[in-house]
Amino acid sequence: MRTIEWLPESREVRLIDQRRLPAALEYLTIQTPEQMVEAIRTMAIRGAPALGVAGAFGLALQAARYNRAGGKDLRSLVHAAAVMLVNSRPTAVNLAWGVEQITSLLDEQTHSESELVERIISNAQALAEADVRTNLRLAENGASLIDDGDTIIHHCNTGALAVVDWGTALGAIRFAHEQGKRVHVLVDETRPRLQGSRLTAWECEQYGIPYEIITDNAAGFFLQSGRVHKVFFGADRVAANGDVVNKVGTYMLSLAAHANQVPVVCVFPLSTLDLSIAEGRYIPIEERDAAEVLNLRVDGQAIAPATARALNPAFDLTPHALISAWVTEAGVVRAPFAQNLAQSRYNQKMD
Amino acid sequence: MRTIEWLPESREVRLIDQRRLPAALEYLTIQTPEQMVEAIRTMAIRGAPALGVAGAFGLALQAARYNRAGGKDLRSLVHAAAVMLVNSRPTAVNLAWGVEQITSLLDEQTHSESELVERIISNAQALAEADVRTNLRLAENGASLIDDGDTIIHHCNTGALAVVDWGTALGAIRFAHEQGKRVHVLVDETRPRLQGSRLTAWECEQYGIPYEIITDNAAGFFLQSGRVHKVFFGADRVAANGDVVNKVGTYMLSLAAHANQVPVVCVFPLSTLDLSIAEGRYIPIEERDAAEVLNLRVDGQAIAPATARALNPAFDLTPHALISAWVTEAGVVRAPFAQNLAQSRYNQKMD
Repeated sequence: MRTIEWLPESREVRLIDQRRLPAALEYLTIQTPEQMVEAIRTMAIRGAPALGVAGAFGLALQAARYNRAGGKDLRSLVHAAAVMLVNSRPTAVNLAWGVEQITSLLDEQTHSESELVERIISNAQALAEADVRTNLRLAENGASLIDDGDTIIHHCNTGALAVVDWGTALGAIRFAHEQGKRVHVLVDETRPRLQGSRLTAWECEQYGIPYEIITDNAAGFFLQSGRVHKVFFGADRVAANGDVVNKVGTYMLSLAAHANQVPVVCVFPLSTLDLSIAEGRYIPIEERDAAEVLNLRVDGQAIAPATARALNPAFDLTPHALISAWVTEAGVVRAPFAQNLAQSRYNQKMD
Repeated sequence: MRTIEWLPESREVRLIDQRRLPAALEYLTIQTPEQMVEAIRTMAIRGAPALGVAGAFGLALQAARYNRAGGKDLRSLVHAAAVMLVNSRPTAVNLAWGVEQITSLLDEQTHSESELVERIISNAQALAEADVRTNLRLAENGASLIDDGDTIIHHCNTGALAVVDWGTALGAIRFAHEQGKRVHVLVDETRPRLQGSRLTAWECEQYGIPYEIITDNAAGFFLQSGRVHKVFFGADRVAANGDVVNKVGTYMLSLAAHANQVPVVCVFPLSTLDLSIAEGRYIPIEERDAAEVLNLRVDGQAIAPATARALNPAFDLTPHALISAWVTEAGVVRAPFAQNLAQSRYNQKMD
């Protein structure tokens, strides 16, 4: 099962429609960059690494549909789609990163347009394949921090559904589970979009990982109780100093873990790292539609007055001081983050 | 509008069915202690001070329906109802306190059974009236901590719906609003039962207090932003050292406020104080039905796999070190709590 994949015959993208889970496993077929933008905006596909691949595939769709007879320049069309895709969600840096992997090809002037089209498509496919390999290494590295018998609180969804396959934080938990370690996950529901109860719980059932769902509010109770050994989550963007911008709620969860001496582990590919940003407070935080907060129903009843307004920041900032370990495909990085990360990146380049 | 009241003609209790808000303002008529227990368990009525009155009224219902011909002793019947009522929710001390206010009358041997019935009913009614007076003083004391222009994060529901009238933390905000102070409330939704978005938002609309709903997860984002001046909440039980057990999520909210130097204000009547408990960790935490976590629907879809399990602690413990001010009807208490509280209780007795 791939969360998102390129269909070579039809030159379309097929992706799991995550808005329909856990009720139904359904796929969307995407044919244009505009459809990809819509899928990203409505969170049919989400998860920082998956968005990187979605961005690259969005440009591959543009290239695949290029028709010289239209009178427009291939490079201009791809650039225009790139701008549209990058702007569809502002916080996760992977989206911009995936798009940049493709637009950098446009500078190669030696190719004919038809050669360039094929290069764009093959590079986007390679990016998706690389994502799986990266995630498998991430998962293995993250699993090294998990002990037999651990109970782990997990935030949002960071499993296969957040990437092409495997995942980041949940990938590490799955890897440990497949190694035979007994792990138990407290899946926090992750309001407002409920990626925890909808997606992570569904993934845990696929893998046979024991879990219970808790409200985000209840994490503090369990952390105080001494029953939790680690907190795991992913990242949407990591600043050069190790500050993490991730799904809203990560900050409060990390504070509560830190206050109770429970290690906080953040798992992400190096493509999530934005060395151009010194500190997390410079990372833009997307504010989303109030309807995501207000559109719940319980027993058929609305959960807010009809005229209620809501504020809906989609991410928050967790200062690096609250984080115990950053896990990338290059290894486990501990504080001080910047210095130790540089070392691990160097190691990776030596591979 | 009274949240709960005694109907002298029919000798019944009428209460707002809070399960139906904000969709509809409907009343339940309660005729027996068993019906009262059911109303408490299902949270048709909730809120620590309101539960105190509900407990007393539950015994008044038992007394009012006493029939000597049944062959049972009035005192035994009231005692049996008291046990049932106290056990209906274990965390809020007010329920036990309200019941105790009535059962203490049973020791008076000088009254005939019919005199005792009337004394129980009149004492329960007096308790409800005293609750309104207490809350008005609470509200005034709490409002003294609110400045013109404050933005306040409020947790759970602590308004008129949590008491007989006025409320504790939200009562203070309402009092400040009626004093002409400009206050703005960020109403956190308070999963799992959503008392914030369902009840507090509804109350803010009744009073004309400007507000927005936020997810519980988003409180950290707003506290970091510098846009929040205070955090206000109530209490279900306060230990002798000032530790607060309150609706789940209070602890994480307080941690985030404390980390950002935002004052944390806890507002409660002295009946919520349990001097028999030295520290909060000895207070029992009610665990409620997993369905409260899992029964949400979004766009008609379940938000968790059909086979998912959930854990649902209803309260958590906020250590006294995170709290800036405790507000009771006797005044504002600052740290060290135990010493300063003793002083304020003494002052109250001098009134």
